[in-house]
Amino acid sequence: MTDATTSDDRLRLLIERIETLLEEKKGIQDDIKDVYSEAKATGYDTKAMKEVIKLRKKSRDDRMQEEAILETYKCSLGLD
Amino acid sequence: MTDATTSDDRLRLLIERIETLLEEKKGIQDDIKDVYSEAKATGYDTKAMKEVIKLRKKSRDDRMQEEAILETYKCSLGLD
Repeated sequence: MTDATTSDDRLRLLIERIETLLEEKKGIQDDIKDVYSEAKATGYDTKAMKEVIKLRKKSRDDRMQEEAILETYKCSLGLD
Repeated sequence: MTDATTSDDRLRLLIERIETLLEEKKGIQDDIKDVYSEAKATGYDTKAMKEVIKLRKKSRDDRMQEEAILETYKCSLGLD
């Protein structure tokens, strides 16, 4: 086996590992889509669900602070 | 159990399913990053690897056609 071949094999192996992972990622993305479809079919608003998922990642303090700032900006712009 | 509770439970369950899937997706994304880091440490150009992964998804015909069009545009713009 020449050096070029082992190097080609090494690169191919790395590429194939990434491709496998990308396929797995695609599968999970499809699963997520399916859950949203199911939720939508049940009557849930998927946009609000996505917002809630974002909010659940934050601490209560961060959430309160962000809401306060947003509230101030909304008042400034007459959005009440 | 009231209707409101069962509905809350149903929503919570859907949200938790999505959150679990998002965590799995994050794990895979981290694995992909790790493979690229390993490749970079071995001396491979990760930008070229990403390009190759894109190309491997296409058929030889599509690849040839896209390359021909690109070649024409490169000539038009004096990129040789």
